[in-house]
Amino acid sequence: MRLVNVSDIHIAAERIGGAVLRTPLVPCAWSDPDRPLWLKPESLQAIGAFKVRGAHNALAALSRAQREKGVVAYSSGNHAQAVAYAARAENIQATIVIDDTAPELKITATRELGAEVVLVPLDQRAQVAAGLVAERGATLIPPFDHPDVIAGQGTIGLEIAEDLPDVRVVLVPVSGGGLAAGIGVAIKALCPGAAVYGVEPELAGDTAASFAAGEQVHWPAADRIRTIADGLRAEPSELTYAHLTATLDGVLTVSEREIRAAVALLARKAKLVAEPAGAVATAAYLFRASQLPRGSAVAVISGGNIDPGLLGDILSGEPTAG
Amino acid sequence: MRLVNVSDIHIAAERIGGAVLRTPLVPCAWSDPDRPLWLKPESLQAIGAFKVRGAHNALAALSRAQREKGVVAYSSGNHAQAVAYAARAENIQATIVIDDTAPELKITATRELGAEVVLVPLDQRAQVAAGLVAERGATLIPPFDHPDVIAGQGTIGLEIAEDLPDVRVVLVPVSGGGLAAGIGVAIKALCPGAAVYGVEPELAGDTAASFAAGEQVHWPAADRIRTIADGLRAEPSELTYAHLTATLDGVLTVSEREIRAAVALLARKAKLVAEPAGAVATAAYLFRASQLPRGSAVAVISGGNIDPGLLGDILSGEPTAG
Repeated sequence: MRLVNVSDIHIAAERIGGAVLRTPLVPCAWSDPDRPLWLKPESLQAIGAFKVRGAHNALAALSRAQREKGVVAYSSGNHAQAVAYAARAENIQATIVIDDTAPELKITATRELGAEVVLVPLDQRAQVAAGLVAERGATLIPPFDHPDVIAGQGTIGLEIAEDLPDVRVVLVPVSGGGLAAGIGVAIKALCPGAAVYGVEPELAGDTAASFAAGEQVHWPAADRIRTIADGLRAEPSELTYAHLTATLDGVLTVSEREIRAAVALLARKAKLVAEPAGAVATAAYLFRASQLPRGSAVAVISGGNIDPGLLGDILSGEPTAG
Repeated sequence: MRLVNVSDIHIAAERIGGAVLRTPLVPCAWSDPDRPLWLKPESLQAIGAFKVRGAHNALAALSRAQREKGVVAYSSGNHAQAVAYAARAENIQATIVIDDTAPELKITATRELGAEVVLVPLDQRAQVAAGLVAERGATLIPPFDHPDVIAGQGTIGLEIAEDLPDVRVVLVPVSGGGLAAGIGVAIKALCPGAAVYGVEPELAGDTAASFAAGEQVHWPAADRIRTIADGLRAEPSELTYAHLTATLDGVLTVSEREIRAAVALLARKAKLVAEPAGAVATAAYLFRASQLPRGSAVAVISGGNIDPGLLGDILSGEPTAG
């Protein structure tokens, strides 16, 4: 199996440079001076999540014949919107298969971007998408299990290395593993002194369990969907898992309460709206300090597509952190 | 009266470059394609507001003797935190006079930055601050009525011109007028084809009334404090007003309902937490389209220091825009 390398990521950065926002590293004046925190707010991307990077990189590689037959994607939401957004920009027809437990917000947003939406149970997404590909001759754009998608997400790591070359700790959410794989490759190549940690909800902690077991273990989808972090309910593929074992220094887990506290703190102190999945890296910074090296830390906020009512509830509750 | 010019702003940019965040222009995929909107999120600055720019530029100009005697500032909140933050970074003692109607959040945040806080009624702030200056030999850092402060805020305009040279419309909140003055000078010098509009709450619309009257009119403080936009309750000085008449194409007003709708939309669609004052420029984009030229628009989000309970209430209410 050939792993993505930093040259692939540099190529991706050239391809997608004009199409995605170069997000800043936002310094946190309220963070521990011994472990100053910067946030990488991928929530500010056009569709509210980092996924535009991988989707754009994958679409940019399609031939004219492939473009004419359209693309198909399946996703718990943010990848859906990312493919729909990139496809609209490239004038390609997109069909998105979404699980029927995804928030209404994400389904509506995908339709508004001009994509056809097909709703199915979580464990049937891959099969339904494969059926559409066979039937139409369309190209599947997977949410994480593809070198171009991994390389696209890795451009976040290039930007971190450029803006904060002496970073000591990078915290990245892990679900399907494409984001952590890409960032891990970039950071390990460009900032060899930095530690890269994946972060998962305890309730979807299959990759942490895999690292503890020394081989990939699989959790039933029914277990993984228990977390409030609806963007972190997938599991790594063989390809992404191989990148994770090659590049991550470890995988941390955070509780549901800690995720909610991080969402509240990001809104209150950093003025950023994060979805629960987007807040897990910040939660690890806040609540797993004893497991992390000292020095400059970056937490990647992977997305901001939270139901406004949920955010309102979290903000109206008692302060839980910070 | 000498007005600030673009050279002063370039000098400010060199002085404060390392101390403030260079905020991105965030594109809004949900905006009208005929009037694409970019947001300039100054809410992401370390103290949650643009005010760090002017404060840093003013402090950077102090002599050693001045530094030893400390600084004094008065403010409805964000300038207070900005001076406290910049003073801590420069190891200068800061005393901040805050009006007793300011949100608790802003008072606490100022104390946490190491400043001494003195609470007084809104209309006594200037006198109390002047008394402290006389008594201690300290230097007053005014919130807007100073060329160095105006030039510091103007660095936002430099960045807009650099990132979007063909901008057609720039929308900026107006209260004391330092922000709009600085941005107006920069944009008119660098993007002569762009229109710059000030935006006020109707309930604190004294500058719009002044533009309509052809001379500055003054509203009682008791009127100006009616708006929910607690950051926009001041009025321009002679110095800032002279900049506004020289550089603004007009001043628009927005209603309290429109301000709340813009706060909700920024959180829901742009994933940014804006305080009411920070949302007025976006409200003008949303609700005053017929009064604006077509083409690329930038709305400056001046700050994000909203009470979390208020944001929760706004998000839990019925959708009001977008």
